[in-house]
Amino acid sequence: MIRFAIIGAGRIGQVHARAVAAHPEATLTLVYDAFEAPAKALAEARGARYTLDIDEVYNAADVDAVIIGSPTAMHVEHILGSVRVGKRVLCEKPVALDMAEAVRCMEELGDEARRVMLGFNRRFDPSFAEINARVADGEIGQLQQLTVTSRDPQGPPAEYVAGSGGIFKDMTIHDFDMVRFFLGDIVEVSAFGTNADEAIKAAGDFDQAMVLLRNADGALATIVNSRTCAYGYDQRLEAFGADGALNAENLTATSVRKASATQTQAQGPVLDFFLSRYEAAYSRELDAFIAAVVEDREISPNIVDGVEALRLAEAATQSAREGRTVRL
Amino acid sequence: MIRFAIIGAGRIGQVHARAVAAHPEATLTLVYDAFEAPAKALAEARGARYTLDIDEVYNAADVDAVIIGSPTAMHVEHILGSVRVGKRVLCEKPVALDMAEAVRCMEELGDEARRVMLGFNRRFDPSFAEINARVADGEIGQLQQLTVTSRDPQGPPAEYVAGSGGIFKDMTIHDFDMVRFFLGDIVEVSAFGTNADEAIKAAGDFDQAMVLLRNADGALATIVNSRTCAYGYDQRLEAFGADGALNAENLTATSVRKASATQTQAQGPVLDFFLSRYEAAYSRELDAFIAAVVEDREISPNIVDGVEALRLAEAATQSAREGRTVRL
Amino acid sequence: MIRFAIIGAGRIGQVHARAVAAHPEATLTLVYDAFEAPAKALAEARGARYTLDIDEVYNAADVDAVIIGSPTAMHVEHILGSVRVGKRVLCEKPVALDMAEAVRCMEELGDEARRVMLGFNRRFDPSFAEINARVADGEIGQLQQLTVTSRDPQGPPAEYVAGSGGIFKDMTIHDFDMVRFFLGDIVEVSAFGTNADEAIKAAGDFDQAMVLLRNADGALATIVNSRTCAYGYDQRLEAFGADGALNAENLTATSVRKASATQTQAQGPVLDFFLSRYEAAYSRELDAFIAAVVEDREISPNIVDGVEALRLAEAATQSAREGRTVRL
Amino acid sequence: MIRFAIIGAGRIGQVHARAVAAHPEATLTLVYDAFEAPAKALAEARGARYTLDIDEVYNAADVDAVIIGSPTAMHVEHILGSVRVGKRVLCEKPVALDMAEAVRCMEELGDEARRVMLGFNRRFDPSFAEINARVADGEIGQLQQLTVTSRDPQGPPAEYVAGSGGIFKDMTIHDFDMVRFFLGDIVEVSAFGTNADEAIKAAGDFDQAMVLLRNADGALATIVNSRTCAYGYDQRLEAFGADGALNAENLTATSVRKASATQTQAQGPVLDFFLSRYEAAYSRELDAFIAAVVEDREISPNIVDGVEALRLAEAATQSAREGRTVRL
Repeated sequence: MIRFAIIGAGRIGQVHARAVAAHPEATLTLVYDAFEAPAKALAEARGARYTLDIDEVYNAADVDAVIIGSPTAMHVEHILGSVRVGKRVLCEKPVALDMAEAVRCMEELGDEARRVMLGFNRRFDPSFAEINARVADGEIGQLQQLTVTSRDPQGPPAEYVAGSGGIFKDMTIHDFDMVRFFLGDIVEVSAFGTNADEAIKAAGDFDQAMVLLRNADGALATIVNSRTCAYGYDQRLEAFGADGALNAENLTATSVRKASATQTQAQGPVLDFFLSRYEAAYSRELDAFIAAVVEDREISPNIVDGVEALRLAEAATQSAREGRTVRL
Repeated sequence: MIRFAIIGAGRIGQVHARAVAAHPEATLTLVYDAFEAPAKALAEARGARYTLDIDEVYNAADVDAVIIGSPTAMHVEHILGSVRVGKRVLCEKPVALDMAEAVRCMEELGDEARRVMLGFNRRFDPSFAEINARVADGEIGQLQQLTVTSRDPQGPPAEYVAGSGGIFKDMTIHDFDMVRFFLGDIVEVSAFGTNADEAIKAAGDFDQAMVLLRNADGALATIVNSRTCAYGYDQRLEAFGADGALNAENLTATSVRKASATQTQAQGPVLDFFLSRYEAAYSRELDAFIAAVVEDREISPNIVDGVEALRLAEAATQSAREGRTVRL
Repeated sequence: MIRFAIIGAGRIGQVHARAVAAHPEATLTLVYDAFEAPAKALAEARGARYTLDIDEVYNAADVDAVIIGSPTAMHVEHILGSVRVGKRVLCEKPVALDMAEAVRCMEELGDEARRVMLGFNRRFDPSFAEINARVADGEIGQLQQLTVTSRDPQGPPAEYVAGSGGIFKDMTIHDFDMVRFFLGDIVEVSAFGTNADEAIKAAGDFDQAMVLLRNADGALATIVNSRTCAYGYDQRLEAFGADGALNAENLTATSVRKASATQTQAQGPVLDFFLSRYEAAYSRELDAFIAAVVEDREISPNIVDGVEALRLAEAATQSAREGRTVRL
Repeated sequence: MIRFAIIGAGRIGQVHARAVAAHPEATLTLVYDAFEAPAKALAEARGARYTLDIDEVYNAADVDAVIIGSPTAMHVEHILGSVRVGKRVLCEKPVALDMAEAVRCMEELGDEARRVMLGFNRRFDPSFAEINARVADGEIGQLQQLTVTSRDPQGPPAEYVAGSGGIFKDMTIHDFDMVRFFLGDIVEVSAFGTNADEAIKAAGDFDQAMVLLRNADGALATIVNSRTCAYGYDQRLEAFGADGALNAENLTATSVRKASATQTQAQGPVLDFFLSRYEAAYSRELDAFIAAVVEDREISPNIVDGVEALRLAEAATQSAREGRTVRL
């Protein structure tokens, strides 16, 4: 039984608390937040105690592992603080908004950087994970092209955008990690950003983007992003290889299809919230983390993956802003 | 080059005339109809001559084969007249509305009954034909269950119903032939008829039906019929065998799918007219007929198949009217 | 918080115990089984106590509701015993194998018969339930035809078949309830049974069946059953109405589709185990039961529904054995 | 009735000859080729006369319109020659391999440049054309993102590649026109090329490519290209707008789907030859051309579209070779 503390009692902390509660080998011991109300509420809902003092987390004898869901600006401090006292760590992405800060974290961690899990949950989505495994098994031959479509149902408020680090660090970062999951290290990036949303434009960020990437072997990828999508949370992937292709389609709540005078085969809207869309992914992510803790080994995705995804986000930002291809 | 006469210049005669015109090994020589206007119009449109005298068809030296699209009541006379003078015949279904009449035709024809093609065009639909061939190749193992869905876009006028012979002879006859195409001779039939349309009910016929059938080997089939269907011409088939299943889905005009706030994967309506839905089937039917003429051999479906389908229609009518299972 | 006892610690008892454990308003207090090993194992796994004495269930002050998963032969005794002491009951289907026994249970229960829930879990499948609700909302107009396809992945052992009551009572019973869920009371049944499996044939039962049904309004249904299915657990439904149709398709584990040199759009096999296929249904069934207990009201499906489904199973058995349509 | 000459009796000339033969308002009068054998064969097959002297085409009084399917290097000469004598022209793409040559043609034509149709047949594919029309009707709101997937079943021989002008001019040119069909003029291009095929690499060309494009309004497009595709001729398009998306899926020969122990919903391979895939497009292209001739008006796509597509091909070639974004 792995005993967990959760740092940060906000929405994502609650998601993790539920996954821990449902997991047969996990138990929640302690909840930390800078504010008492959410810390207390989450602790009580899950039968754990809470604290407003982060040192209590580090010092707790009944905490084996820490899940960090605090504000991004606190990630590095909470990672280093937890690792320093021998806790195992699963931290939400990104490592940091600032590349230098992320690299500093990675360097301070040294060998431990590959043992701190970073929450790129989409790698654990059953469909994406299945395609990755089947590609690795050689089912479609040499992988040549990857197409990642990722559109959010609704754009963030303009005030969020201001502190988000921009679309490439805030949203595309997941897709950069997905590209790395399939293609490994990337050597060339070209990104186009644009705006359909005036408020986001006014806040100085793009709300739509397309990116091209190339890996060292010459395999290509394209990412298609939008902050809004009328039909829900559009999350698809196509892996194209020498012998065929594997596609992950969107998910709907049921398998019902309708035929009427004006159309046929009409399914319901796509699952439109990251928690319902990636519910299975969060659960399998925790499985993977616990397995790595139990077996005391490195895990993917980790802090190094986080730094590399951030490097792609910075390259894409530069490419989109300066209108040029960036080599890494 | 096979030289054709067409008997009957109505809608179905025009369909066949077009198929003959498009066929590289066929040419249209002569058109017969009881009325001059349609005969002349069709003949001129296709560069053929026309006649109002049926004997001219029988006596024409430049006619090798005859396609009969006359009213059903004339089928037997036109078949026998044509075969008597050595013409090869493709006749629209049914052989006759009356079983005794159809049997008389079959008996008079003797061995020729298997050389007169009957226009059960659906056997030549690319999807249904493909499934039949793949079942025959053993791709799904022993065939065990067949599901035939057949719904017309719009019901016939009540005055047509009166002289149609009833839904089982007029509409389900195609599905009975389809069941025989897959399962061969049938030994047991149970049919339920019902009404959603008051006018057809008043005319003494059913407008919806479901039928169960069993062949000599014990394989089962179900037919689902409706005279009306809001989303078009619903024509599907499922063959279920020991090792899997093969399904033919409906056809839409294009491959376009739409996603919106209320639904996803919405395709257009199903092709809603028998000519567009079965355009390829009519063309392949003619191919099969010409091949049999050229090779001077028996063909399926033929007059015997027509008599057997009619036998199933009579059994189903009896079953539905008397509320009992009928053994053949 | 509703406090549960589970009667019967076998496979289905374990399914319900898991659902109770996961439910925020339910807790498991007591497990009964005739044998100690399974009772003890289940109780310990779920933090409950266990007993081999059924009276202890009836007398337990900390048990509000009972879930009955005992052998079918014990259902009536356990239902009556529990209801007599004021416990609320959710009983697995069927009420009894014998119609007279089921009717006796219903009559002894009197008004309580509509408050004892019967475990026709498929009514709670998200897709089937959604179609039922949309039909009720009038989305496809007057419901006219229902097609239920229900094929099990693997046939039961011949020794099970002997005591099962036959395919119509053991397997089709779910489909009869589904037809009643959509069409209400049935007035006419015709069933064909057949065999693809020699062992089941030798045991005196059918292993495949097709059934036609008609309700009082003239709406028709067809059921297609097989004890085996190469591609998994084939569970589909089509509701056809005046204004369109709603179809529930099969479920696969992921949304992945493959294209290769020989085929395209290939998905994985259908979910092939009733627990994975109907996992959501069991959970929603418990929701519905708890809601009815909390609100102290009647519930569907109940013992009356169980008796009516059994009546259809008996009619179908008679129809298939005697080769005739049965009126109810 | 429009009387046609065909210049070039090769494969594409034969395609057009067949479309002319099938068209009710068109007739083929004359065939020209530099070689006698193909000219004679095509003329005889279609009941036309032939010539080896191009001036005979220009001088023929019984030729209203000319379809040019000669080698690309001859296109400009044949266009200018035909227009000079007042013939209406439908020319296969591209106008020329060399941009300067294409511009010279456009300039010499002056106002006539918009009356010479260029054979970007994909605009007439029923699915792509339907999406374009529905986008124009505002069905998905403001168009924001376009994804074009275009993969050929088999790569060309290396010797063809040498004289092809490179993948962007030879293959992607169709996709550039498709992007312009939806997004109009393009202001920014970034292209990545790569190689999976050693022979094509040795010939100095790419065999796979991905391209990003932006129009003046900021709408983005991505093109995904491959010279080879295991599952056939992969031709898809997604138009994404403020209110939803429209997708054109690949076409298979029939609607048959297979379920077996290892997979479900498996369709046949995608139509794998441009003539079967775009058969309807060639026919509708001719419809559009004849309508423009009859109504004596401008037509799209025309020589100006050809020049603009070529401009994008040159920009993409430059972008891919120099590793930079190109502004237009």
